Amino acid sequence: MLNFEVINPTRIVFGKDQLDRLSELLSEYQVKKVLLAYGGGSIKRIGLFDKLIERLNDFEVVEFGGIEANPEYTTLMKAVTLGREKEVDFILAVGGGSVIDGVKFISGAIPYTGEPWDVLEKKEDCNFEAAIPFGTVLTLPATGSEANSGAVVSRSELEAKRVMGGPLFFPKFSFCDPSLIATLPKRQIANGIIDAYMHTLEQYLTYPTDNLLQEREAEGILKTLIEIAPEVIVDPSNYRAAANLMHCATHALNGNLRCGVPTDWTTHMIGHELTAFYGIDHARTLAIIAPRLYEHTFDNKKEKLAQYGERVWGLTGGLESRAKGAIVKTEQFFNSLGVDTRLSQHTDAYENTAERIRTIFEERGWTAMGERQAVLPHDIEQIVKSSY
Amino acid sequence: MLNFEVINPTRIVFGKDQLDRLSELLSEYQVKKVLLAYGGGSIKRIGLFDKLIERLNDFEVVEFGGIEANPEYTTLMKAVTLGREKEVDFILAVGGGSVIDGVKFISGAIPYTGEPWDVLEKKEDCNFEAAIPFGTVLTLPATGSEANSGAVVSRSELEAKRVMGGPLFFPKFSFCDPSLIATLPKRQIANGIIDAYMHTLEQYLTYPTDNLLQEREAEGILKTLIEIAPEVIVDPSNYRAAANLMHCATHALNGNLRCGVPTDWTTHMIGHELTAFYGIDHARTLAIIAPRLYEHTFDNKKEKLAQYGERVWGLTGGLESRAKGAIVKTEQFFNSLGVDTRLSQHTDAYENTAERIRTIFEERGWTAMGERQAVLPHDIEQIVKSSY
Repeated sequence: MLNFEVINPTRIVFGKDQLDRLSELLSEYQVKKVLLAYGGGSIKRIGLFDKLIERLNDFEVVEFGGIEANPEYTTLMKAVTLGREKEVDFILAVGGGSVIDGVKFISGAIPYTGEPWDVLEKKEDCNFEAAIPFGTVLTLPATGSEANSGAVVSRSELEAKRVMGGPLFFPKFSFCDPSLIATLPKRQIANGIIDAYMHTLEQYLTYPTDNLLQEREAEGILKTLIEIAPEVIVDPSNYRAAANLMHCATHALNGNLRCGVPTDWTTHMIGHELTAFYGIDHARTLAIIAPRLYEHTFDNKKEKLAQYGERVWGLTGGLESRAKGAIVKTEQFFNSLGVDTRLSQHTDAYENTAERIRTIFEERGWTAMGERQAVLPHDIEQIVKSSY
Repeated sequence: MLNFEVINPTRIVFGKDQLDRLSELLSEYQVKKVLLAYGGGSIKRIGLFDKLIERLNDFEVVEFGGIEANPEYTTLMKAVTLGREKEVDFILAVGGGSVIDGVKFISGAIPYTGEPWDVLEKKEDCNFEAAIPFGTVLTLPATGSEANSGAVVSRSELEAKRVMGGPLFFPKFSFCDPSLIATLPKRQIANGIIDAYMHTLEQYLTYPTDNLLQEREAEGILKTLIEIAPEVIVDPSNYRAAANLMHCATHALNGNLRCGVPTDWTTHMIGHELTAFYGIDHARTLAIIAPRLYEHTFDNKKEKLAQYGERVWGLTGGLESRAKGAIVKTEQFFNSLGVDTRLSQHTDAYENTAERIRTIFEERGWTAMGERQAVLPHDIEQIVKSSY
């Protein structure tokens, strides 16, 4: 088992009608002035906004709406300016992973005296060294951002997506109410399922390890998602299915699955570029790339693919047959959620995508990826090309 | 899924040779004077003590050895007096669950101005309201105390075991080095396996729930323990097996398994009395009680017993047959570790034990236990009697 270190101080408050405790939790952090950050306004349509305002009676509230999917640097900088001006001492992120990721950036950028983009660009000596504390009210189970300290921020004029994070950026608390899933469009639910599924595969589908427990925990998430996906897609008000989806999404990226095992993340690295280029939903970029990546790296991954095929999909037969079957099952699962797994089904402008991504990766010095550092730039090009 | 709240801020530092980072971690907490608390001296025999002293060069160290299994109130109060006198600002617990549990008590009692036993007795208005921060160096995987905020303290002159805990009592960090398992007697390793196994069963073996993921995570721990138990018993220096045991023990009681599901804990409540009466190792008391409790509560637990039998032990057949087979398998598993599962194999003075425990529980008002609150005092008596 590989050495590891793990910490996750976020308080998860999971279930129905838990929001009644919001005021109590904020009081524990001596909050006076809250920046209430949200997305496109769906929280008003579903009545959540009013519920929150009611429960924020004892606090001064500064409102910031309009954080978009793949949160934009320029949008977030407006929130930073507002937060500085109003001297907020807490941020409440209400939404899915985009809003929560955006708030992580805002929380670090408000007290930062330099140019925040430099931090995202990882320029020397540029770090967020303090952060405004924040909590979340999760509306969309998918990214696990409610239970981790990472974030992705986009800057579309540069076609750039950048990651940030660190110990400062764990939410103090996250309210996770599965009954909110009933208000979501099916497209977002499908995205959420795939996102949680792929977070798990990125940390599991490498090679057999001697961390027997971690592998079983990953398989438990995958099996649960497969079991509840058809139910929650057909009826998002099915609380049992919705609650399991939300629980899986949190567990898929709360820092646990990576403990003591190698991880891959190549699918995410490629996928981020597809979103930056074409605005394709994050989860859908993963569904496009993953099956092709597993085919291309088959020789390196086949033992674990076979284990995954057997334990998660119940496949039998020889190693190669189980391994190949596992890729087919995975793609069929994505398709069964209404998600197309070919780039050309998502954009007409797909030509040269492979070459562009290869070039970008080379420019960034990302020349050896995956759990064995064996995925090279020409592999990336071939994987993307085979996904057209 | 039941509503739940969970938080666990302990930093787990897992693996070989991680102790080199001890000084770095202590510095993060601005530590000056450390109370180094340990057990019977085995840490000196295995060279761990010297290693620690070497790594504590930059700090003033106050030594307190002699914390026994089932840590004694009177012993711990000596450490409290020493800690107050020397004004320590951090405690380092080096040992297994008993030392760590003891340190949790010490950390709360040092700044407490009243009589600490009143807190354990849960007397009105008696609470630990502050605690000296502490970290742990785990030598024995078993109780999960390194990754939770609970503790059990004994007072043998009163034949009493009392539980305590709360948010103040999470270790700041825990070093978990599986290579230390190689130094342990087989008896302690067997105890550790059973302890982790029973922590899992107490939170799993209730009735089928709709928390599909939590059930699979519990099953993952059980399967892993069954897989590695024979290997680590035969060869404790088998790092793969030892690391999985240590990882399982932490996961079995870090607060995760109880999320959104009913729990039982009756076996532990009875078991604590057997330790208080006869000094039987904690894990062994669980092995004595659990099979008889499952038989006695069979009608209430049979659906989950059958699921456990099928998924964990691979049993087939009808529900009742899988359920009964699961109890047999569980007892055989304990026996295979060299652990006897009859009270009369552990003490000659077993007569009247059942009646005594019934009386004690009635006096404490513990009149309805288990996941359905359906285990009544006369059930307790029958369960204990059938364990003779």
